[in-house]
Amino acid sequence: MVGVAILGHGVVGSGVAEILEKNASRLAQKSMQDIELLYVLDVREFPDCPYAAKFTKDFSVIENDPRVQVVVETIGGVGVALDFTRRALLGGKNVVSSNKELVAEYGAELLSIARERNLNYLFEASVGGGIPIIRPISQCLAANELHEIYGILNGTTNYILTRMISHGLTMEEALAEAKQHGYAEANPTDDVEGNDACRKICILAALAFGRQIMPSSVSTEGITGVTLRDVRYAASGGMVVKLLGRAKVLDNGNVSAYVAPHLIHRDNPLASVEDVFNGIVVTGDAIGDVMFYGRGAGKMPTASAVVADIIDAAKHLNARKLIFWDKADDNKFEPASAIPSAWYVRAKMSESQARELFGEISMLSCDEAADGEIAFVTPEIGGEMPSAAGIESVMRVL
Amino acid sequence: MVGVAILGHGVVGSGVAEILEKNASRLAQKSMQDIELLYVLDVREFPDCPYAAKFTKDFSVIENDPRVQVVVETIGGVGVALDFTRRALLGGKNVVSSNKELVAEYGAELLSIARERNLNYLFEASVGGGIPIIRPISQCLAANELHEIYGILNGTTNYILTRMISHGLTMEEALAEAKQHGYAEANPTDDVEGNDACRKICILAALAFGRQIMPSSVSTEGITGVTLRDVRYAASGGMVVKLLGRAKVLDNGNVSAYVAPHLIHRDNPLASVEDVFNGIVVTGDAIGDVMFYGRGAGKMPTASAVVADIIDAAKHLNARKLIFWDKADDNKFEPASAIPSAWYVRAKMSESQARELFGEISMLSCDEAADGEIAFVTPEIGGEMPSAAGIESVMRVL
Repeated sequence: MVGVAILGHGVVGSGVAEILEKNASRLAQKSMQDIELLYVLDVREFPDCPYAAKFTKDFSVIENDPRVQVVVETIGGVGVALDFTRRALLGGKNVVSSNKELVAEYGAELLSIARERNLNYLFEASVGGGIPIIRPISQCLAANELHEIYGILNGTTNYILTRMISHGLTMEEALAEAKQHGYAEANPTDDVEGNDACRKICILAALAFGRQIMPSSVSTEGITGVTLRDVRYAASGGMVVKLLGRAKVLDNGNVSAYVAPHLIHRDNPLASVEDVFNGIVVTGDAIGDVMFYGRGAGKMPTASAVVADIIDAAKHLNARKLIFWDKADDNKFEPASAIPSAWYVRAKMSESQARELFGEISMLSCDEAADGEIAFVTPEIGGEMPSAAGIESVMRVL
Repeated sequence: MVGVAILGHGVVGSGVAEILEKNASRLAQKSMQDIELLYVLDVREFPDCPYAAKFTKDFSVIENDPRVQVVVETIGGVGVALDFTRRALLGGKNVVSSNKELVAEYGAELLSIARERNLNYLFEASVGGGIPIIRPISQCLAANELHEIYGILNGTTNYILTRMISHGLTMEEALAEAKQHGYAEANPTDDVEGNDACRKICILAALAFGRQIMPSSVSTEGITGVTLRDVRYAASGGMVVKLLGRAKVLDNGNVSAYVAPHLIHRDNPLASVEDVFNGIVVTGDAIGDVMFYGRGAGKMPTASAVVADIIDAAKHLNARKLIFWDKADDNKFEPASAIPSAWYVRAKMSESQARELFGEISMLSCDEAADGEIAFVTPEIGGEMPSAAGIESVMRVL
């Protein structure tokens, strides 16, 4: 029997508990032994819950029960979640997490503690909800030298952009609709400002390239500056606006990463990733481009990814998975400007001025263009964002 | 040290040898021990090969060398490949395979031998080339009850259809082009008749639903009946023609599977899977739809998937992965007609005749329509392929 304790009975934690309680026999078959939910830690009371007897408010009860071999951390944030994760690992328990903030900021430390103690720290659910991505990168693509990872990592902003593109809603209208459907939280800052996507690209980059990248060092631009006119100019050139997280190995071996809205061509497989779906492209030397697509959030998709990690941890109590990355090193990280790019530019200037500034540009059009406004795509001109008098909007073109 | 022997020095086998020889130190790091290529079995001579000294023509040399712990079978077919795989497993060696024909037809038996002897029989490369799909299904989606799998499983036919759709080539022109580019073999029967896709959907279905399905029992239709007019009628309804393998759990718990060309809507993520790329959609109760996308064939993508399995086998010499399925059971398999469908129909009949036969149809159009010909999409009318006087072409619509 493998005993499990869940920390945090929120959306994901309660989904995990539900799966463990309802599908016990199927899970036992998959993991070749019984998996038993022993504790759920939460500061709140859930008296009507079918497993109400398993609740505790005291982490030390879990910490001191040797039957608990897998601790599931779905608290979120870097406060008690960090403290409990450290204590669980130091106490010889495997930890499974859906906490992207914690993995992005403290992954190197926690993986290092896990390695020293021959334990697993698994976090498939931290990126892409239920989409398999962490395990495919660390195992299936193990024979590849990975060069680049980029993708649509946040469902809320992708829903908003999709509604702007397909139904001509403004950003504000689309955000209001996303809140109505429960796709955006009351305070959507972390989503619309790109912070959520930033944590996820940091985790993917660390996994793929072997070194932690601190979210605080990653240039992060959300979608609040994207206008309906930008969306229409993009459409005139066969492109759509998508918020991408991107990390790339540079020629000198350093890594650069950023989060920003992009114009991408309709024939890019990411262009058809719509609504709340996520899509992640991984580029390797042998495999070329591989894309993973699915629902990037939601209670049951995310919970099912956590449970897959629990099964894996239960099957590998004495055979650690090899997920590991080194501590962050500022000398090996470069800003977004290190990645050259073609740029979308919307500006109040003449076409000839634009050509003087940027060379061979491709003009875009929009029925509702403002007076004296033009928009165009530059040739590849380096990674510094173009700036000049009259420029009102700038985005990378992929 | 983990000793490896490669059986068959063809496209994939030589790619595997290349990776093992060139990336030894990276692989050692990933698998936490040295992986050494000890033998390459082939009936041919390769005197100029840098590892020429490792060639043997005698399988018993490999069989009797206890240093060989992983045998890589890239021979293909179900002749000596089956014999050698059985002997390797019975002799206590793990086996990694890229041989879809063998896995599709003898998977249950070989997995059963592996299980009895606590060995691994791994075959990530047998479906989707280097696209991670076997491991994600068996591990990452382990907490899901899977309902359905379908996808573009053959790159050659997808290239041909893409060229017909995007450049108006006829089937024959597109096939000739595919041969020129090396995307189709001199004898492309297995690809264009759907047999290759059939083997792959059998493997995916067995893995997802736990029971072998014999390729011989799966209704298999290739692309040879698809005409340029069909492609154009599809386009008029916002659809593209794609060859899909599909397997589905029916309401009674039985499984049905088939291979056939389909019309799919442009907003289906598979619609943008073009050229030689593959795309595989997996549907689970918790996760919903997940898609895996990438190059489904080619020397290095496929070889990199084999090497990932070698690493996995090396890391799990004493901890078997849980991949297993039962023997085929005709009583639990139903023909394609068990899956209801809307249908594309091209026929010499009047619109009113068509409405009489099929009810509320949606008409399609084509500039080059033949005299008296119409094409339309029926409502969902059951899984039996529509047949009536005048019908010239029929395809499922997904």
